Amino acid sequence: MSHLENIQTWLAKNNYQIGYISDYQNIQYFTGFSSDPVERTLALFIFPDQDPFIFAPALEVEAVKEAGWNFPVYGYLDHEDPYSIIKDKILQRISQPKRWAIEKGNLNVSRFEQLQQKFPNAKFNGNLTPVIQKERLIKTADEIEKLRIAGKWADFAFEVGFKALTTKRTEQDVVAEIEYALKQKGIMHTSFDTIVQSGTNAAEPHGAPKKDFIQPNKLVLFDLGVIYDGYISDASRTVAFGQINQKSQDIYKICLEAQLTAQAAAKPGITAAELDRIARNIIEKAGYGQYFIHRLGHGMGQSEHEFPSIMEGNDLVLKPGMCFSIEPGIYIPGIAGVRIEDCVYVTADGVEPFTHTSKDLKILPVK
Amino acid sequence: MSHLENIQTWLAKNNYQIGYISDYQNIQYFTGFSSDPVERTLALFIFPDQDPFIFAPALEVEAVKEAGWNFPVYGYLDHEDPYSIIKDKILQRISQPKRWAIEKGNLNVSRFEQLQQKFPNAKFNGNLTPVIQKERLIKTADEIEKLRIAGKWADFAFEVGFKALTTKRTEQDVVAEIEYALKQKGIMHTSFDTIVQSGTNAAEPHGAPKKDFIQPNKLVLFDLGVIYDGYISDASRTVAFGQINQKSQDIYKICLEAQLTAQAAAKPGITAAELDRIARNIIEKAGYGQYFIHRLGHGMGQSEHEFPSIMEGNDLVLKPGMCFSIEPGIYIPGIAGVRIEDCVYVTADGVEPFTHTSKDLKILPVK
Repeated sequence: MSHLENIQTWLAKNNYQIGYISDYQNIQYFTGFSSDPVERTLALFIFPDQDPFIFAPALEVEAVKEAGWNFPVYGYLDHEDPYSIIKDKILQRISQPKRWAIEKGNLNVSRFEQLQQKFPNAKFNGNLTPVIQKERLIKTADEIEKLRIAGKWADFAFEVGFKALTTKRTEQDVVAEIEYALKQKGIMHTSFDTIVQSGTNAAEPHGAPKKDFIQPNKLVLFDLGVIYDGYISDASRTVAFGQINQKSQDIYKICLEAQLTAQAAAKPGITAAELDRIARNIIEKAGYGQYFIHRLGHGMGQSEHEFPSIMEGNDLVLKPGMCFSIEPGIYIPGIAGVRIEDCVYVTADGVEPFTHTSKDLKILPVK
Repeated sequence: MSHLENIQTWLAKNNYQIGYISDYQNIQYFTGFSSDPVERTLALFIFPDQDPFIFAPALEVEAVKEAGWNFPVYGYLDHEDPYSIIKDKILQRISQPKRWAIEKGNLNVSRFEQLQQKFPNAKFNGNLTPVIQKERLIKTADEIEKLRIAGKWADFAFEVGFKALTTKRTEQDVVAEIEYALKQKGIMHTSFDTIVQSGTNAAEPHGAPKKDFIQPNKLVLFDLGVIYDGYISDASRTVAFGQINQKSQDIYKICLEAQLTAQAAAKPGITAAELDRIARNIIEKAGYGQYFIHRLGHGMGQSEHEFPSIMEGNDLVLKPGMCFSIEPGIYIPGIAGVRIEDCVYVTADGVEPFTHTSKDLKILPVK
């Protein structure tokens, strides 16, 4: 069964007449058509026993068809009221549209109120958000193949980034080199802002690359990924640019042990919280617990913010096909920061990473 | 008065106790703190007669302070329930929080339901979305200065792009050259995906750059912009790469006349719809009306999707400080596409563009 058919089945089983999908990334997931409509309206309507349809800005109608969508697509012009047209199209299919499921995690209150006005007798009790999250949680072989290719491009990006390190370049310059090399290969989008942080800058886990020059004899942290055919990669490596001091060597070693141990322990049957705990125990036992200030990992696939979240309190049991990051980090303000990350998918008896750049401490010559 | 104080005044005047701002770009606008929280919760709470506070992921709390925010900021950890903490912080300030204004155009139904559960006796009638849109509509001198600088970087990007045209590069290669040059100058973000389209590819106004080589003796369309200190640029130029045929020359001339005439006519007192009509009349009279398939322009500032929308049906009267694009286009499938665009701000008696790259047809040598 296709992803779309699974939603149709869920609607039928739960006695909903209409499913309204409003998140453009979910629309891509179900239809293959990818576009961020920003303030315009893009919608996918699914029915338990009729063909679905897409509703889109008029400008996008041709692109929907080109994306291989074989069901109806209706457009609207900027000065038209989208929800009036949607109402007509729904009423052509269902005379009494009363039982709706919507994406509560995406649809905004304003659009929800417009929908309520157009369908005053309807109930919007169904929530598609967790249903779609669950559907997206287990990746198909086809999705995993795309994630693998995206991972290979992340490995390529590390190679470019490591070679680009010199005291004559700033962090931002190194980012420029990485993204230029990717674009020359036709990889036009990163999955998030490429991070290159040198020395103490790496102690800010959410910091942006600065105009600071790469410092000799310090750690340099890379966190990067690309988008390939709608699927992402996300990986971190921390390398030594020259000879680093004992403290930096120590935290690298501990972070690596936490990463490798968690990656080796990940398999079907273990919970997300247990996996987080395995990595966290190692860092805590070494006395650096207070410097590991984020969850062990996040789900990924079309974006880096999917399920499962690998964190305390999440008792979700890992299953084959789940994809997530394993990325312990130790950030000591004013001293250094280390993060080591692979994204992996769960197999029958373990996990396989999407990235293969060595995680042994790489010592690059200062130049 | 600051933007924030204007919202406080609006809350007081309309008898709301609390204003809840959830859109991260609006939070940046009011606080200077810029971060996309993706699935995490980031919120700004404003009160008519008390200090506001920011609620953020724990990871971001330091960054909020570093951004110069002098009011309270509270963090939450990934495994904590954000709305429970928000409830506590609100109750510390207001014993009976009943009258709320929310961003209906941003807050999703799921979060809205959580809020309703935490505050079952409250009413959420107030809608901050149009209030903030109106506040953002008129740019301050400081904002216009940032938009000017962003515009200069767009002019720089055109220069790089024009020089990069050769039959040995693909459209994507030219994009790579433009963005590499920008990043080397420390301009790390474009405001949208840079567009370079050659020949018939330019007839798809929403198409992405392809792996096709730049074709000699055809038009090449550039649409690009950068983000500078939170403010964007957005401009389009279409150039001749070699000798173009009569048809291409004709549509360029008509599109340019439409652009220049509309830009000359824009001033306080005219409506958005009238301005659209001025450009559209010229293109329609020349027989190409069916190929001008989008509105004349869009508002801009922090993003390219602000108000005012310059289109049929919008009777908004232009006022000094409004910023928007003037971008007629003629797209003839299978033949060619032309778009010429400046973003402008309204002055006391006209408009000033943010970009200054010549709009006369530039004929570049084939190389």
